[in-house]
Amino acid sequence: MYTSITNVRVRYVETDQMGVVHHSKYYVYFELAREDYIKETGIEYRQMEEEGLMMPLVESQCKYYVGAKYFDELEIETKMLEISAVKVVFEYIVRRKADGELIAKGKTVQAFVDKNTFKVINLKKSNIDLWNKMKKLMEE
Amino acid sequence: MYTSITNVRVRYVETDQMGVVHHSKYYVYFELAREDYIKETGIEYRQMEEEGLMMPLVESQCKYYVGAKYFDELEIETKMLEISAVKVVFEYIVRRKADGELIAKGKTVQAFVDKNTFKVINLKKSNIDLWNKMKKLMEE
Amino acid sequence: MYTSITNVRVRYVETDQMGVVHHSKYYVYFELAREDYIKETGIEYRQMEEEGLMMPLVESQCKYYVGAKYFDELEIETKMLEISAVKVVFEYIVRRKADGELIAKGKTVQAFVDKNTFKVINLKKSNIDLWNKMKKLMEE
Amino acid sequence: MYTSITNVRVRYVETDQMGVVHHSKYYVYFELAREDYIKETGIEYRQMEEEGLMMPLVESQCKYYVGAKYFDELEIETKMLEISAVKVVFEYIVRRKADGELIAKGKTVQAFVDKNTFKVINLKKSNIDLWNKMKKLMEE
Repeated sequence: MYTSITNVRVRYVETDQMGVVHHSKYYVYFELAREDYIKETGIEYRQMEEEGLMMPLVESQCKYYVGAKYFDELEIETKMLEISAVKVVFEYIVRRKADGELIAKGKTVQAFVDKNTFKVINLKKSNIDLWNKMKKLMEE
Repeated sequence: MYTSITNVRVRYVETDQMGVVHHSKYYVYFELAREDYIKETGIEYRQMEEEGLMMPLVESQCKYYVGAKYFDELEIETKMLEISAVKVVFEYIVRRKADGELIAKGKTVQAFVDKNTFKVINLKKSNIDLWNKMKKLMEE
Repeated sequence: MYTSITNVRVRYVETDQMGVVHHSKYYVYFELAREDYIKETGIEYRQMEEEGLMMPLVESQCKYYVGAKYFDELEIETKMLEISAVKVVFEYIVRRKADGELIAKGKTVQAFVDKNTFKVINLKKSNIDLWNKMKKLMEE
Repeated sequence: MYTSITNVRVRYVETDQMGVVHHSKYYVYFELAREDYIKETGIEYRQMEEEGLMMPLVESQCKYYVGAKYFDELEIETKMLEISAVKVVFEYIVRRKADGELIAKGKTVQAFVDKNTFKVINLKKSNIDLWNKMKKLMEE
């Protein structure tokens, strides 16, 4: 199973008055992590959208263990847990880089959607090449 | 079971280039909805924090049905699903006000934490009055 | 000169670890204030965009006097300082509603742009009706 | 005059339905650029805050030339234009890295403030070492 590694440094604006990263910002970190995972197929997510394929979220979840702080460097491990013709499931594990402390764990489910119609599409039929590449990453 | 109702209008800054609300922003809407629910106890969340009680998230999740658009007015129904001495679970149902269309459903789990020590506290012991009020809202 | 009034309550997510609203968020408040000003013409900004007219910013500025805090209710007074065929200048004065304390003052300059070409357009020529309405608000 | 260089890649969440970066996000980029400038003194902004010195904004401004797009890599040149015992002025020039296109230019003014009292302090008196280092960067 291919695992991508993403490094993110906590921005000041991402903290709140609790003095830690606001819980909603982890979903932004997951988005960055997904970009890194996807580009391993040889095609960037930006390009996918330009070519008409979008991957909007149908589900997201996160468990929070320790609050990340301003300027912490975080390391996110991303894996693809499942893929079908119409959706894909990613898992994210966020650790503080300095000491490996577990910060958060998350999951997202994304549908394959046509950019113009906003309808779900069958990736196997609409883009067999991308399908094969993603499938391969999961089975590696 | 008490249900609070929160109205939110989608802000321009909350949309992304897909033309819909970015998925991470629903967690912000849930936060606003929680404020409304909590103030029904007679104490605002702001006050709770001032008095030393914080309610950081330990878990969050959301299912997305239809993308909300810029300037849509959304209505959020909030219920407390569970409460124990150390945590509370809220559920959120987001609908487009114009036609009642289901936009998203979410859940958050929050711990009761001491503002200074950042340690989990037992709400029943530390603030029996608030405990009773929250318990009562759930059982209503 | 027409002045619109907008009420905004500070969201938790808008605070940072300084315990006050992050400076970048005032520009979001100005955006909400602009929506209120513009709808006085009888047409919402949303509609303008749907009809092909966008008003992207070419300049923005803000002076910060006192940091707004979580859950503060703010009142924003908005005026149009100038309008020409190709751009419009708004001014914003943000006060804490509870005591009238001056929080921030800002200004934005926006161009009239065609949604499809992203080119500046002459509002007087492309939409004389909107031009007249905006002109009138300024001169009121 | 010392100039720091900061690279930022546009995040999906930073775009809005116009298909470009929301204007308020450039102020976040400036914040990242400032961190890079400041650490050249040998002390990170995080440390400054930990040691009791905050630098809240008293003014900010930005001119927008071309809209940056999702995944664009941006390069920000940061200079200190002025420094006095109580405040400092930074200038930012944002270019698209691929072709050097000018995207935005900004300026921020920041006060030196005591973290506990939130009062303006005289940096020359309270931290002569940091004062000397910053002064030197400007005069380089």
